[in-house]
Amino acid sequence: MSPLDQLIEALRVLPGVGPKSAQRMAYHLLQRDRQGAARLGASIVTAMEKLKHCQRCNSFTEADVCERCLNAQRDPALLCVVEMPADLAMMEQTHTYKGLYYVLMGRISPLDGVGPRELQLEKLIDRASDGVVNEVILATNFTNEGEATAHYVGAVLQARGIKVSRIARGVPVGGELEHTDIGTIAQALVERRSL
Amino acid sequence: MSPLDQLIEALRVLPGVGPKSAQRMAYHLLQRDRQGAARLGASIVTAMEKLKHCQRCNSFTEADVCERCLNAQRDPALLCVVEMPADLAMMEQTHTYKGLYYVLMGRISPLDGVGPRELQLEKLIDRASDGVVNEVILATNFTNEGEATAHYVGAVLQARGIKVSRIARGVPVGGELEHTDIGTIAQALVERRSL
Ligand SMILES: [Zn+2]
Ligand SMILES: [Zn+2]
Repeated sequence: MSPLDQLIEALRVLPGVGPKSAQRMAYHLLQRDRQGAARLGASIVTAMEKLKHCQRCNSFTEADVCERCLNAQRDPALLCVVEMPADLAMMEQTHTYKGLYYVLMGRISPLDGVGPRELQLEKLIDRASDGVVNEVILATNFTNEGEATAHYVGAVLQARGIKVSRIARGVPVGGELEHTDIGTIAQALVERRSL
Repeated sequence: MSPLDQLIEALRVLPGVGPKSAQRMAYHLLQRDRQGAARLGASIVTAMEKLKHCQRCNSFTEADVCERCLNAQRDPALLCVVEMPADLAMMEQTHTYKGLYYVLMGRISPLDGVGPRELQLEKLIDRASDGVVNEVILATNFTNEGEATAHYVGAVLQARGIKVSRIARGVPVGGELEHTDIGTIAQALVERRSL
């Protein structure tokens, strides 16, 4: 395969990119923005080499344990479970939460072939069973998949005697944290209820 | 900036990719397909290093002059002008044309800030004035932009005494070659008319 065909083929790894749009992207990179393309290539290589999952929160980090997890100012008795790093970022922006996090890196979604096994909940269970965590706050989305994930994760943790709460349904039903205003998220956090 | 933020930022060089979708792409690469991502990074780096514009047809190639332009079986008296490499590929699939090509790598599009200057028509003029080319066939799209490009390029070449033709309007008005069936393109090629 020529470097051009290889590039077009490789671009299809991106979500939602089919053959036509991979071709369009390749021409765009080659024709309009070679500098940006070189930067993109290098950034991908660097990111794949350097980024791994934090041993504690499962988010992406260069270190074994990320800075947030090592921050002694945060309350280690509270562990907030979110679906994705973008959700964690939204929680942080509320300035309402001073505990720690666990990022599932997904949600239970049978249609996408993601069951409880794929979420590797053992890692969360270990994390929540460290003897310091006093309460796990479930902050998955209020979509069907996020709710199913909260129910499942909540049941698994409760079965191990861990106290679990769910952020309040202040987030509109069907809504996603990433697209919710900060005030609503803050309220939902304060009004979390025990499971 | 962290490697993750750098990756998200770098992904925005892709056409139509905003901040949210760059973030989604970065997580997808890191979480779901690291091998594909590594391949993508390497492919981009390789493509940017190796691919340049053919000195004769302006398409992407690793050599100074591409294999098609060096093919002695093709008729050097005919030069077909297309907008993009994908259009050239469509022309080839008709098996109706045995001449050579020139790829504009774009079209006149004032809204996108692409005027005649950006198309670097001097290169086409030089190519068409080699003393061997006997006829330039304009095969730009039949969109408004493609038509404007054909009119402009045609006028420029005719002013230099070069014989110019336009593929027939068998391609539906408003249509793009890339989405047209091969038979229609073949007919339009055969029924090309002198300007
Ligand atoms: Zn961490
Ligand atoms: Zn060539």
